[in-house]
Amino acid sequence: MNEQQPSIDIVAKHQTTLDHAIQAVKTRKSWSPFKDSPSTKIHGPEKPGLGKAAFEAHLHQPFSLDLPGIKGWAGEEVSPFTQQKLGITYPLCDPHATITAAKSSMTDWAKAAPNLRVSLCLEIAERMYDRNFEMAHSVMHVAGQSYTQAFSGSGPNALDRGIEALAYAAIAMDNVTPSAQYHRMFGREEVNLEKTYTLVPRGIGLVICCASFPTWNAYPAMFASLATGNPVVVKPHPIAILPMALVVETCRATLAEFGFDPNLVTLATDTLAEPIAQQYIDHPDVQIIDFTGSPRFGNYLESTVTRKLLYTETAGVNSVVVESVDNLAESMRAIARATCLFSAQMCTSPQVVYVPKEGIKTAQGHVSFEQVAQTIVSEIDVIAQDPKLAAGIMGAVQGQVSLDVVEAAAAMADEQGLSILRHAKPYNHPDFPNARTRTPIVISATSEHKQMYSEERFGPVLFIVAANSGNDAAQEATELARTRGTISCYMYSTDEDYIDHWVDVYAQVGANLTINLTGAMWINFAAAYSDFHVTGLNPAGNACLADLSFVASRFRIAQRRRPITEGAA
Amino acid sequence: MNEQQPSIDIVAKHQTTLDHAIQAVKTRKSWSPFKDSPSTKIHGPEKPGLGKAAFEAHLHQPFSLDLPGIKGWAGEEVSPFTQQKLGITYPLCDPHATITAAKSSMTDWAKAAPNLRVSLCLEIAERMYDRNFEMAHSVMHVAGQSYTQAFSGSGPNALDRGIEALAYAAIAMDNVTPSAQYHRMFGREEVNLEKTYTLVPRGIGLVICCASFPTWNAYPAMFASLATGNPVVVKPHPIAILPMALVVETCRATLAEFGFDPNLVTLATDTLAEPIAQQYIDHPDVQIIDFTGSPRFGNYLESTVTRKLLYTETAGVNSVVVESVDNLAESMRAIARATCLFSAQMCTSPQVVYVPKEGIKTAQGHVSFEQVAQTIVSEIDVIAQDPKLAAGIMGAVQGQVSLDVVEAAAAMADEQGLSILRHAKPYNHPDFPNARTRTPIVISATSEHKQMYSEERFGPVLFIVAANSGNDAAQEATELARTRGTISCYMYSTDEDYIDHWVDVYAQVGANLTINLTGAMWINFAAAYSDFHVTGLNPAGNACLADLSFVASRFRIAQRRRPITEGAA
Repeated sequence: MNEQQPSIDIVAKHQTTLDHAIQAVKTRKSWSPFKDSPSTKIHGPEKPGLGKAAFEAHLHQPFSLDLPGIKGWAGEEVSPFTQQKLGITYPLCDPHATITAAKSSMTDWAKAAPNLRVSLCLEIAERMYDRNFEMAHSVMHVAGQSYTQAFSGSGPNALDRGIEALAYAAIAMDNVTPSAQYHRMFGREEVNLEKTYTLVPRGIGLVICCASFPTWNAYPAMFASLATGNPVVVKPHPIAILPMALVVETCRATLAEFGFDPNLVTLATDTLAEPIAQQYIDHPDVQIIDFTGSPRFGNYLESTVTRKLLYTETAGVNSVVVESVDNLAESMRAIARATCLFSAQMCTSPQVVYVPKEGIKTAQGHVSFEQVAQTIVSEIDVIAQDPKLAAGIMGAVQGQVSLDVVEAAAAMADEQGLSILRHAKPYNHPDFPNARTRTPIVISATSEHKQMYSEERFGPVLFIVAANSGNDAAQEATELARTRGTISCYMYSTDEDYIDHWVDVYAQVGANLTINLTGAMWINFAAAYSDFHVTGLNPAGNACLADLSFVASRFRIAQRRRPITEGAA
Repeated sequence: MNEQQPSIDIVAKHQTTLDHAIQAVKTRKSWSPFKDSPSTKIHGPEKPGLGKAAFEAHLHQPFSLDLPGIKGWAGEEVSPFTQQKLGITYPLCDPHATITAAKSSMTDWAKAAPNLRVSLCLEIAERMYDRNFEMAHSVMHVAGQSYTQAFSGSGPNALDRGIEALAYAAIAMDNVTPSAQYHRMFGREEVNLEKTYTLVPRGIGLVICCASFPTWNAYPAMFASLATGNPVVVKPHPIAILPMALVVETCRATLAEFGFDPNLVTLATDTLAEPIAQQYIDHPDVQIIDFTGSPRFGNYLESTVTRKLLYTETAGVNSVVVESVDNLAESMRAIARATCLFSAQMCTSPQVVYVPKEGIKTAQGHVSFEQVAQTIVSEIDVIAQDPKLAAGIMGAVQGQVSLDVVEAAAAMADEQGLSILRHAKPYNHPDFPNARTRTPIVISATSEHKQMYSEERFGPVLFIVAANSGNDAAQEATELARTRGTISCYMYSTDEDYIDHWVDVYAQVGANLTINLTGAMWINFAAAYSDFHVTGLNPAGNACLADLSFVASRFRIAQRRRPITEGAA
């Protein structure tokens, strides 16, 4: 292990970053070691082109990874921007061979110093940042994120969530002193013991990634498990493998370079026809499961997995309550932008906007429900009608399934006589004429149609619901959060008493709440180190990015003790 | 809530204790705010008699607790010392009423400041220490612990485990800043947000207590849940209710005195004929389950409970490896004492001693397997033959079931032609002529009889197994730990290379190891703040007393954020 002995250097190299990250999670201020803009002013003129070329070089090629137990090759990725197959194939591995190799990799890794493990994860993060233009194109062409979003959201913002998890892992491990001396009188005898506390990793960590935003949850899960001594098997979604293949490639190269077994990180590719996750889930050596994906499968895992750690982030139905506003256009623009961002394929995208049916107060006087709804529609139109703006914000729709969701919502609205305030339409992507695009459908509803709008609809579908009152709106929103789950809720109110009353209820149902936010920041932007993501208190998932509970059980403590003797001390 | 406003005083009152406890868990030095000897030099001349009288006043009376939903009274405790019924009855409550009351109690408690909740738990601990003579007699007469052990092990030592959990709860909660300011440029706009992070308790905590050592695991579970804002339902073992009734009584009185709803802590008594635990386990409002008890039920919970936090401590098969010793008599005395302590009814009691069949090296030269075994027997005899010593160490056997275990072991040994080196016998308790007592049976075996000695036998049964070699002994011991679970393992060796090699294996199988310990301290004494208890890496349980993972998931974090405005800031 570690024949080149670079461990001291690598720990020293990343110490400042780690210190800052720990400081950031404690203060929850804004911080990042990275820049999340793709500007050449930051990255120089070469990198964008080199990154694009690196992405293109993967196309129509096998993705070479020297994994254990390769028994075939497959790949079925289709770009949402070109609607062409990427033609990349990935090794299909025998789960038994993967697990055996992962287990065997664990011995040396478990013995490595915690700060060395953390530092190697930081090194991986740094190298992924260096590959981030390649990553941006890779994410675009499997997930449909716009170039700028793929660059930031799937790059630095995701790496930051990973480093945040590393900070908590470092805090949790540092909380266990490696040794102690124990002196106590028992009767008239002084007993003097030396005690040693060993951090023992729990076992193989399985990281099941989602298709639309794979790196964002994968980095924290991978780094949390790796830092605490566990090997990681990455199970990418079969339609979004490339981003995770890049990550696994960099992890393996980095670990090998520093003298560790590359099989600490493996890629368990499967196909839509032959899913493989369950074989890992059931294996007793897999002790940690991190899952991001559909509520259906997450729910299945939550109700079946025992004797293992399970961390889930699925999805819920996010709501906005508009009780009163200062500036109507600014507030509705904020909602419209959040609805348009990545065509509402985000776990933080709003789906339901509650507005009192009698209308709301604004600084410019009373406005009707219809005016509020129409302002949201207008603000969506501003984006939808400008192809360049739409391309940067909406990107593409990952799969036909999300277009079907939109169609189904439209059909149901028609069926139930609901007014469709805005029809979903493709927009013309300026760079990719074949891009699968769709601007949001906006449907006007009342509480009677609860069944319709309280189902999660993964795609650009927005309901504006006429509530009986502001209090009814918040009541419905929090009940929706409690029963259907939510990851982000939003509220607009100029009434401080109203806000004061409802924030407690939102907290109790585990709804993270953004109040009165307008302006340049996306209201559904969640910043690592500062914003906790998922509370674990409602059906949208059981794990939080990131807190101590996300890391503290990934390792255990074994102790030994013996009398202090002159020979042994 | 809290009309008397004594919160600041109570926080200040316990601040130093909390600070010391946090310091102790970080350094894992020897520390306690309590004295664990019942000496009148410490407690004054009055307390022992008053405590005994307080215990006796409970006998043949209903134990008055103003619990919600009382629908009857029952009690079936029998003293292992007198073999007479205690005649105490306890309220039987409707689980639905208990859960409704607990849930309702949670609102104010969740809003109370974390340090106030921690301080009230410390206040409860202090009051329980004040009642400790009463507790000692109560534990004696339900569990069978000797007076001194009941006083220390079920009193200060158990309270220390509770305060240890409080220290971790304080650390974990303190890790979440209550608020932050966030400043970041988005494009050319500076965004300034204020963020609030609210600790939200998870839900009702169910604490299922064991019969032989109820308080030791109950305090940490109760305090960990209470401190993090959760109400607690205590489900005592139906043959050992009184100690937990005392605890619940003190909790309720203390909470009420400080303005909180006493239903934050309730007692869910049941009977052997009509067990009630499952009704609580299945209830969706019960979100945390702490279980101490049989491996059978623990295993059942571990394989069935989903969507809830589950912390288990069950039992395993603890082993001793005797590879070589300095002083034979001293080492074997340590093993003999651990075997005799509470008639081996402890989760840390050794059950199997592995000794190389060719004998071992000692400072006085080579001794045979038979000599090693005989020395253990002689050292047990020293205790068994002195009724006063035996009474202080062995106490009584809690139930007929443990006598049956001893009988069964003897019968199996006879059947398989194994040599019984020492027969189990009652000893005459000097104070209680009717006490149910039994000194340990000692059986000589070889690896062939693995099936016999590798089953957990809860009672005074010790196997001395002839191993092929010292390495084989440790190999068998660690394999036993991995497959059957263990809470404490013991090793005697003068060979540092041997120790160095095997400590890693013990750690990997999650066996806490005590090496070469002799003298006044019981080798199976586990000190709160210093010794981690249960690793969670083998079948003996999944929870550790106490580490961050024991507390970090008992609360969740809900956040809200909003722009900083002059009005709101």
